[in-house]
Amino acid sequence: MKPFDDEYFMKQALAEARIAAEEGEVPVGAVIVCNNQIIARAHNQTERLNDPTAHAEMLAITAAVGVLGAKYLTECSLYVTVEPCIMCAGAIGWSQLNKIIYGASDEKRGYKKYAPDAFHPKAIVKSGVLEVDCAAEMKAFFKQRR
Amino acid sequence: MKPFDDEYFMKQALAEARIAAEEGEVPVGAVIVCNNQIIARAHNQTERLNDPTAHAEMLAITAAVGVLGAKYLTECSLYVTVEPCIMCAGAIGWSQLNKIIYGASDEKRGYKKYAPDAFHPKAIVKSGVLEVDCAAEMKAFFKQRR
Repeated sequence: MKPFDDEYFMKQALAEARIAAEEGEVPVGAVIVCNNQIIARAHNQTERLNDPTAHAEMLAITAAVGVLGAKYLTECSLYVTVEPCIMCAGAIGWSQLNKIIYGASDEKRGYKKYAPDAFHPKAIVKSGVLEVDCAAEMKAFFKQRR
Repeated sequence: MKPFDDEYFMKQALAEARIAAEEGEVPVGAVIVCNNQIIARAHNQTERLNDPTAHAEMLAITAAVGVLGAKYLTECSLYVTVEPCIMCAGAIGWSQLNKIIYGASDEKRGYKKYAPDAFHPKAIVKSGVLEVDCAAEMKAFFKQRR
């Protein structure tokens, strides 16, 4: 048995995404994990903070470096429900996150289309973890808004 | 006579870069201008804030949306001493800044190499304003550190 696997942590990110949805925010959630411990959790807060840079990943990275007291997150993994945008991909690169795991792809705004080499060349990237659930949150949110 | 031209505002960004240098930060400065008025000024604070996302442009954007109370900066111009990185280019895209003016190019970390289509397709981009001065700040800083 492996209780702390990728699905476990993605479920935690999904819980953050659901909080975002309840608050009327685009439902993206993220957690940062270090030695099997969640050291930061965040969800999109662009509306609440009135700040287009307040994406879940940005808030999680800033929180995580605060917790560790280190400027880099070289031993850490980021779990995020949706493929990061260029901005967040750039922040992931600067923070030297070791592993990036995301759920749903974002073909319109995702980093893969605009900046496929954003991460450190040695960073491990895994996609599609709980993809259906992560994508469902986004679909439900945008359907409701239309 | 046109007192508030691109050079005028880039000088203000340069003044911010010099404050960064004095504080031991990578000397990048930025100002955001709306109707010929500077509504936000910032310099790189990655060391002081112990946060790899605390680039001049990010801090200026967050400050500017705070000043305007609007989530977008569609009528604003960003002056920054060095070509933005991917992260900042993404933030510029999200904030819908109308005009981006930078001084020195950054061939290693600049957005042009990694994400040339980061900005809104209608955004106006101008480079090379006070390029020599902007580049000199960076060179002096890194020379001192070697």
